[in-house]
Amino acid sequence: MLLQNLNDGECRELLTRMGFGRLGCASENQPYVVPIYFACHDEYLYGFSTVGQKIAWMRTNPLICIEVDEVIAPENWSSVIVFGLYEEMPDTPRYAHLRQFAHDLVDKRELWWEPAVASAQTRPEEIRPAPILYRLKINKMTGHKAVPN
Amino acid sequence: MLLQNLNDGECRELLTRMGFGRLGCASENQPYVVPIYFACHDEYLYGFSTVGQKIAWMRTNPLICIEVDEVIAPENWSSVIVFGLYEEMPDTPRYAHLRQFAHDLVDKRELWWEPAVASAQTRPEEIRPAPILYRLKINKMTGHKAVPN
Repeated sequence: MLLQNLNDGECRELLTRMGFGRLGCASENQPYVVPIYFACHDEYLYGFSTVGQKIAWMRTNPLICIEVDEVIAPENWSSVIVFGLYEEMPDTPRYAHLRQFAHDLVDKRELWWEPAVASAQTRPEEIRPAPILYRLKINKMTGHKAVPN
Repeated sequence: MLLQNLNDGECRELLTRMGFGRLGCASENQPYVVPIYFACHDEYLYGFSTVGQKIAWMRTNPLICIEVDEVIAPENWSSVIVFGLYEEMPDTPRYAHLRQFAHDLVDKRELWWEPAVASAQTRPEEIRPAPILYRLKINKMTGHKAVPN
């Protein structure tokens, strides 16, 4: 197979179309990787989560990495790696507009079956934690694709 | 959908059967996530790579995380997260036996189409870097699966 670089537009196309990837965060140099769904818009990936290990870690250290890939066959795949920063959008007046925007984006992608949210749904309504809305700023992005010889 | 925990045997079954996942490493609290192929045996995941960013980072900080998943449908998936340690198996007499063992394991899984190796194959033979053989010690492992309601 042959490896080729993806340009910026091709990277964004993959991020937007897949909307699913593996998020890496780190605490005291221990990495942690989890699958996440997201919606891509301009320089940000928008997502939500209930409070848990990844949110706790990203609050302490906002440096993140996301890997997104589409594997059609072992010799036919694309992969994008994003380095970025975690930014929370708390439920305060200052973030109201951005939260609504993120909510609409995420709704469009039907992300409500995310594991964390599904998990919360098994608890009684009154003790369900409110989901955390966040966005990941894209600081640097590289992409590759493999094509059969 | 409903979430269930996977027990140790179910986690190992997924790792062994998939042999593909996303490896997270970290340098100065910056996480980095890349797809890797591996072969699972006892307490280790065996793999190889040409020298590059992930090897350089794991040599400096051996703490790693691997996420492996099988997504059949948005409400029907399994996911395992492994925390572990990077250990290199250099081409020295001390590691000769272990390297042969790892080589055989990896050969069985036909991992030779890994991106890094494919990439090296486009270079003239005399300047192809020798692949690095490594293993990742499983220190802690958790797994979940989602089943439709």
